[in-house]
Amino acid sequence: MRWAEAGETVIVGSRDAKRAQDAADKIKVRAGANAKISGAENIAACNAADLLVLTIPFEGHAALLKQLKPAIRPGTIVIDATVPLAASVGGRASRTLGVWQGSAAQQTAELVPKGISVVAAFQNLGAELLNADGPVDCDVIVCSDDPAAIPIVRALATKIPGARAIDGGKLENARILEQITALLIGLNIRHKGHSGIRITGLPPAAHEVV
Amino acid sequence: MRWAEAGETVIVGSRDAKRAQDAADKIKVRAGANAKISGAENIAACNAADLLVLTIPFEGHAALLKQLKPAIRPGTIVIDATVPLAASVGGRASRTLGVWQGSAAQQTAELVPKGISVVAAFQNLGAELLNADGPVDCDVIVCSDDPAAIPIVRALATKIPGARAIDGGKLENARILEQITALLIGLNIRHKGHSGIRITGLPPAAHEVV
Repeated sequence: MRWAEAGETVIVGSRDAKRAQDAADKIKVRAGANAKISGAENIAACNAADLLVLTIPFEGHAALLKQLKPAIRPGTIVIDATVPLAASVGGRASRTLGVWQGSAAQQTAELVPKGISVVAAFQNLGAELLNADGPVDCDVIVCSDDPAAIPIVRALATKIPGARAIDGGKLENARILEQITALLIGLNIRHKGHSGIRITGLPPAAHEVV
Repeated sequence: MRWAEAGETVIVGSRDAKRAQDAADKIKVRAGANAKISGAENIAACNAADLLVLTIPFEGHAALLKQLKPAIRPGTIVIDATVPLAASVGGRASRTLGVWQGSAAQQTAELVPKGISVVAAFQNLGAELLNADGPVDCDVIVCSDDPAAIPIVRALATKIPGARAIDGGKLENARILEQITALLIGLNIRHKGHSGIRITGLPPAAHEVV
């Protein structure tokens, strides 16, 4: 929704093309009739996109990536916002599962075709904040082993009003970003809020997207 | 230093009483001649204190706790700010070691006498920020299995100008606080800053210390 409002071309993917279209229609109501947003079944969405954003429950993560793999086009950037919450196996959303590769995003890096860049970002930007009006009070930390992908995703993050985007280094740091989500969910439950994080104390250049 | 400036009685502990005294003297220069700050060997400091703050490298963590154990008085609150950085075993300060108990603070809970409350806090408040002048732009997340200890430590945190203190729930969440430190150290190296975190989106009550 935020990207459609910013003029980006967005395709909502779903297992069910009808549900994807319904979601896209809902966003259009808010983003305006000129918004370039549509819905498609996952494989079709993947075929048409040069940038994928995975925002899925962890229990469907590996299976979806195996299904999508043949449809991911060379040069695609895969942004993974998935968090391996223990809720995926009936546990708490304020705890994470251990993922053998270190994080959900690193699991993604193992499951995409060779040469596809994986970027971890957006885990800590809750749906409630994105669905609300006005700017968010959150930073997006962007991690990837492909230094060329980081500025592209940082630029995309800053299209969300209020969000600042910070280069967080290698993809291995995704494990920390994913754990922060569990902490924020715990704080939301405890304090009845919609929490986010800001990183303080960095020079302005750390937040500038060239 | 910040607590001495706020009028708290502080004892700096060290393996070497002379080094402890030197550190206390340095703080006195800044906090003023009336500051209630002194130095002592660790066991003596522990004997005299009703609240201990562990700010030690992880490689000395378990050994120090075993040494201190007989000297910890009943009713003491042990605040653990230790982070199991991989630097402890010659690795990077931007990575953590896995601790069997889940976190350094949970290891502490295993090593202190029965009935002693352990609180995880202050990991993400860097020495450079505390040594600088003026308020810090940081939140302190406070985790403990003793709900009575949390407000005491939150009140202590807010004696550091600028710091807000948030109840972060059970001690098990210390693992996330400790990992955040590694992330912040990585950001400091990458962006040449002294980073901290702020939690956004919580109601004001989450930050009020009664």
